[in-house]
Amino acid sequence: MKILLQISFLGTRYAGYQVQKGHATVQGALCEAAEKVFGVKCDITGCSRTDSGVHANAFYATVSEHGKCGLETTIPTEKIPFAFVSALPEDISVISAERVGDSFHARYDVKYKEYIYKIYNRPIPNPFYADRSLHYPRAIDEKALSRMREGAKKFVGTYDFSSYMASGSDIKDTVRTVFDADVTREGDFIIFKVSANGFLYNMVRIFTGTLLGVAEGKTEPEDIIKITEARDRRLSGITAPAKGLYLNRVVYREGAK
Amino acid sequence: MKILLQISFLGTRYAGYQVQKGHATVQGALCEAAEKVFGVKCDITGCSRTDSGVHANAFYATVSEHGKCGLETTIPTEKIPFAFVSALPEDISVISAERVGDSFHARYDVKYKEYIYKIYNRPIPNPFYADRSLHYPRAIDEKALSRMREGAKKFVGTYDFSSYMASGSDIKDTVRTVFDADVTREGDFIIFKVSANGFLYNMVRIFTGTLLGVAEGKTEPEDIIKITEARDRRLSGITAPAKGLYLNRVVYREGAK
Repeated sequence: MKILLQISFLGTRYAGYQVQKGHATVQGALCEAAEKVFGVKCDITGCSRTDSGVHANAFYATVSEHGKCGLETTIPTEKIPFAFVSALPEDISVISAERVGDSFHARYDVKYKEYIYKIYNRPIPNPFYADRSLHYPRAIDEKALSRMREGAKKFVGTYDFSSYMASGSDIKDTVRTVFDADVTREGDFIIFKVSANGFLYNMVRIFTGTLLGVAEGKTEPEDIIKITEARDRRLSGITAPAKGLYLNRVVYREGAK
Repeated sequence: MKILLQISFLGTRYAGYQVQKGHATVQGALCEAAEKVFGVKCDITGCSRTDSGVHANAFYATVSEHGKCGLETTIPTEKIPFAFVSALPEDISVISAERVGDSFHARYDVKYKEYIYKIYNRPIPNPFYADRSLHYPRAIDEKALSRMREGAKKFVGTYDFSSYMASGSDIKDTVRTVFDADVTREGDFIIFKVSANGFLYNMVRIFTGTLLGVAEGKTEPEDIIKITEARDRRLSGITAPAKGLYLNRVVYREGAK
């Protein structure tokens, strides 16, 4: 059996999820903590790469003994999150743990993932949200919000999303299915939420930048379809900064666990 | 005329409000920013000292030209908060500004101040609240919450509060009037809110520690009066950590401005 951890982290201090020499990473911190908790060197497999500064409300990773396909431990599964508390830095928590089969893969068995992007929409920035949202000072009124929502709905479907992919990715298949996309107001925040079977490099951040262009009237909501069909990164909007992005939910294929 | 700023800050990075050589302080950051904004060396007078790591939803400070009793500027008052945005670090914001008379004093004209203390009450810590609340893993149920509330009410009144004062203060008059004190649940948080005409060194943090003792059954709510009357720091509870404390509201005497 492998152990599947549900993790929450504040990404500010990290050069993303994936281990990189000479940088603090979430995977690196988990790997060190797992060795303390289980008393053996461990391999950690995450559900996704995340960029530097991106956060997670719900990230998943499996733990196996290093070089093996599972892990033996006498720690009761429900106690595992507590065992991680003192082993992890304060900006990473294990929320829950479960046992999964050896064939389960934290990344390949993902059915869909949901991201949210938080925009703090007040004239003056809020110190408590500086590293956790994009500060957007210009008021997004009800009309602009409904334009953004209408634009977001145009992302839904199966498309080649290369118009919303940053360069520097060596991926070949750029077709993804977006299941749902919406924009809502929550107090002083505008929240963009999107779920898909996979995301291209910076896709949610470029979606967000494009929707801000729609709010500003630079782009019409119905133009989104044309931008998508053009498969041309120059037509979509800016890449919104990493600090507003949260991996929010991961759903695995039925029977995968 | 002096300029009175309403400020919000995340205290994590600061050795408190007050300038100290060799340490980052909120007053130091404000002083540097004010010189950039107004083009002259400035004196900053705050409404309160705050400890290292303490936050503020609403802190007040006046700005005067260095060595003078006021400040001349052509910047319209309502534009001042915007002028501070690029001059201040991300963890401090000027929320609003107003002009006040030269005789106004940000500290001596305070009628009362309100603090809140945030307790994150879930078994596993939350990375997004690590430096912004006390993580208290033991469940505070409705009974414990009502005990805390009952205990908090015993702080209300005019007392010598030296049982709740940390050593290291050279203050002579330890009598203060607490106007209101309450404990409520807000989602995963327990919030202790207290207002008084003044606070002794670490008073809110020791109030909080004492109330946690009440939640745990170590102290009975009605014992609070005895603890207060004993004027003995050894009888009250622990000093809760600074990171959960927020200066929340400051009210000035009528006519002071």
